[in-house]
Amino acid sequence: MSVSGEMILAGRPTRGEGAPFAASNPATGSAIAPDFPTATRDDLERACAAADDALAPFRALGPADRALFLDRIAEELAADANAIVERAMAETGLPRPRLEGELARTMNQLRLFGRVLREGAYLDIRVNKALPDRTPPRPDIRLSMVPVGPVAVFGASNFPLAFSVAGGDTASALAAGCPVVVKAHSSHPGTSELVAKAVARAAAACGLPDGVFSMLFGNGADIGAGLVADPRIQAVGFTGSRAGGTALIAIAQARPQPIPVYAEMSSINPVLLLSGALEQRGEAIGKAFAAALTLGAGQFCTNPGLLLAVEGQGLDSFVSSAAAAIRATTPATMLNRGIHRAYCAGVRRLASHPAVTPLAQGVSGDGWVCQTALFTVSARDFLAHPELHEEVFGACSLLVRCRDAVELRTVLAALEGQLTVAIHAEGADDQAQAAWLLPLVERKAGRILFDGFGTGVEVCDAMVHGGPFPATSDVRTTSVGSLAIARFLRPVCYQNTPDTLLPAELRDANPLNLPRTCR
Amino acid sequence: MSVSGEMILAGRPTRGEGAPFAASNPATGSAIAPDFPTATRDDLERACAAADDALAPFRALGPADRALFLDRIAEELAADANAIVERAMAETGLPRPRLEGELARTMNQLRLFGRVLREGAYLDIRVNKALPDRTPPRPDIRLSMVPVGPVAVFGASNFPLAFSVAGGDTASALAAGCPVVVKAHSSHPGTSELVAKAVARAAAACGLPDGVFSMLFGNGADIGAGLVADPRIQAVGFTGSRAGGTALIAIAQARPQPIPVYAEMSSINPVLLLSGALEQRGEAIGKAFAAALTLGAGQFCTNPGLLLAVEGQGLDSFVSSAAAAIRATTPATMLNRGIHRAYCAGVRRLASHPAVTPLAQGVSGDGWVCQTALFTVSARDFLAHPELHEEVFGACSLLVRCRDAVELRTVLAALEGQLTVAIHAEGADDQAQAAWLLPLVERKAGRILFDGFGTGVEVCDAMVHGGPFPATSDVRTTSVGSLAIARFLRPVCYQNTPDTLLPAELRDANPLNLPRTCR
Repeated sequence: MSVSGEMILAGRPTRGEGAPFAASNPATGSAIAPDFPTATRDDLERACAAADDALAPFRALGPADRALFLDRIAEELAADANAIVERAMAETGLPRPRLEGELARTMNQLRLFGRVLREGAYLDIRVNKALPDRTPPRPDIRLSMVPVGPVAVFGASNFPLAFSVAGGDTASALAAGCPVVVKAHSSHPGTSELVAKAVARAAAACGLPDGVFSMLFGNGADIGAGLVADPRIQAVGFTGSRAGGTALIAIAQARPQPIPVYAEMSSINPVLLLSGALEQRGEAIGKAFAAALTLGAGQFCTNPGLLLAVEGQGLDSFVSSAAAAIRATTPATMLNRGIHRAYCAGVRRLASHPAVTPLAQGVSGDGWVCQTALFTVSARDFLAHPELHEEVFGACSLLVRCRDAVELRTVLAALEGQLTVAIHAEGADDQAQAAWLLPLVERKAGRILFDGFGTGVEVCDAMVHGGPFPATSDVRTTSVGSLAIARFLRPVCYQNTPDTLLPAELRDANPLNLPRTCR
Repeated sequence: MSVSGEMILAGRPTRGEGAPFAASNPATGSAIAPDFPTATRDDLERACAAADDALAPFRALGPADRALFLDRIAEELAADANAIVERAMAETGLPRPRLEGELARTMNQLRLFGRVLREGAYLDIRVNKALPDRTPPRPDIRLSMVPVGPVAVFGASNFPLAFSVAGGDTASALAAGCPVVVKAHSSHPGTSELVAKAVARAAAACGLPDGVFSMLFGNGADIGAGLVADPRIQAVGFTGSRAGGTALIAIAQARPQPIPVYAEMSSINPVLLLSGALEQRGEAIGKAFAAALTLGAGQFCTNPGLLLAVEGQGLDSFVSSAAAAIRATTPATMLNRGIHRAYCAGVRRLASHPAVTPLAQGVSGDGWVCQTALFTVSARDFLAHPELHEEVFGACSLLVRCRDAVELRTVLAALEGQLTVAIHAEGADDQAQAAWLLPLVERKAGRILFDGFGTGVEVCDAMVHGGPFPATSDVRTTSVGSLAIARFLRPVCYQNTPDTLLPAELRDANPLNLPRTCR
């Protein structure tokens, strides 16, 4: 497949009639053909109307048939893998192995939800049969989860495949039975087109209603805002900046009928370096930290942007090792001009902050590249300056030096919500300290990990990629892993309903053979 | 126990120092002793601080121990049952059998959550053990649900026991491991005190931290708003008016860290009377409708406030029967002066509406009594006048006469979200029509029921007492039934965590013997 500048409107390749834009190659800054005409308000209206029409037939399809659709999307992506990866390389500056890995992960994610659908436990089916002889008699009541309705998904810049057009939000929403309207990220429109066409081919092959999937080009203020405000849209998935997320939340809350926005926004992912671990293996942790920090130019939501440690010899050896590794890092191209600009501004802000001292910088370079940066600040100053708690998206981190474990805990308590908190611990003293810290850590983050870094988010049943605000807008959910499907479901119960009128999953004979809890 | 005018502040009976108020007997309008001094801002601060301190130990307690606490609350309520019921009769005007039933339901609800805790499936424990030989290696990842944090509960006026101090919100929040701060409803402060003291006795008997439970008196604008705005509160449970609910949501959204508000607000609970059912048993349905409408002076969230039917002989016989039954209803005392005033205003609004025709009125009476009212309007006029879609809380209902089934469906599509939709169907034609309507019905309501009315909400595993906005503020949840616990939980995962540092429910040896999914 070649990139032609088309959107997918209600399942069909369609050329927009709005103002065109082009992608830029972040390695060279030059535009990449072709142009992508954007969606008009009328295109948006048609996509939302078709999604609304598709809800009932898509909901009626049953989990096993939707699983076939997800599997088929994975197959269509595989069939077009080379074109997708090459276009993504050109549009994002990310290297081939990373994008091949990300495509594999995206396909696995679709298949994971296929498995979730076939198992059926996600429906939480509950059957309470009538108890006519009880006083008062109990009616027959049966509960299942149903799709919330059409879902708007915003492609993310930093994962052009796994958090974009056919990424986790789309996969989990489709799995739940929700038609999806994607607003593609303007950083990788060609990649978005190729992926969207794979989804559309899969939908057509499975005979699904047209409106099950649309993908539009357009800017956030017009098409993005219009999508969230559209009365047919019932939930929103977003991965991006805090400013972007809070803007969407405000639109969603101002609707006559407010809707949930699942925004994954901002996290500095504190790493707690306990004294025993630093003493035993400060040097090794320093190297591992530098590797985690610079991976993918630091453009991960789970990038280790904050280190908390108690002063001492172990910390010194960690710092020398991390600094040496950082000084040797070659600069990597960032995703786009805006991200590069924001990164440089963030680094400058830290470098010029009176309370902050630079520890190390990576090699610099030309173009939109990320020059790795590590700074340090005392715990006292960090506590006094909340602006230092803000995320700098990219390979930049801040080491907070604490006098003792109590001060370290005070710093942790002052932090906002996080996606991850990592703890490095070695020996009995560290273990005791970790045990003392954990109840607080648990309140701060969705994922707690030991002796590692949060980068690398496993797609599995037990993953939580979520956390308290502002890490996400909804602490009750995850955007990665099989539990992500719960974001797009709502419970409905049927009382005293004739068997033939019940949804198939609730009928007496259990024709879909799904697990149910009966009492 | 006698009523002394005390709150419960961090587990201890405490006299407020704010302006006092007294309850009124709605049957006589006269004040009932004693006075209840309200909470000061300082009391609120202490309650929230204690709740925050109690979170970690209460979370650490383990489900089985929290189940003992819930069972003990039920026992303490049973021990004080007579005093509670008599005080509630005086404060609410509700009759003894209703309040005895409601107390039994409240105790059953606590025990239901005790069972949920002992079974442990609500924790959704997922264990993905490490796969060191995979490429890339998979870390060990384990997920469990943890409490969201301290919860604010607002007592409801219309269920002084089951949706109040120890009602469904409190029971499910405590079950989840969340400390609770209740703002008592000012309509039944003595009942609230007695119930709160029962909860406090149970907490003391179980050796729980003081902050696990507080119950404050105070007005909504000050103590209620302050509670929702307090940074330690992490979720809110509310049952009441749309204006009250939306005000709390606005406060919760304006916080630096927004929090979820579970507000159950406004529902007119459409009843679809299909033609076959009306022809076969219009008279019987009319009688049953009048009984459901007037039950408890119509003061139920699930009261049948709207009837949709196609013109015809069957409908005429339904109307004569319903009207005759309504004309014979004796007036029942309403819960308080405010509700009575709003009811009378709502009935006057309908009576004076140019498009609306009165069908029947119940017997009138002195004092704050509810004179039942049934009106009718054409579908066309109903569609043209959205103000007719608003709830009139009390025994008032509006029959929408439709020309045919297509118009009936159009009316249904125009409605806002509902707690319940009831369908009366008889014979093959009705069944076909119901099947055609159901996909739309499912999008409109959390509970769909056949050949009955939504009043009477069974407390069981399969119940959904929820629905799209404005029925509730969060369509993904229920406030009745065992699934209500999910409102107060968030997922957290632990990665590569030493076994001794894992929460007990995630350890290898499964010491709490809880169900888990391992892969």
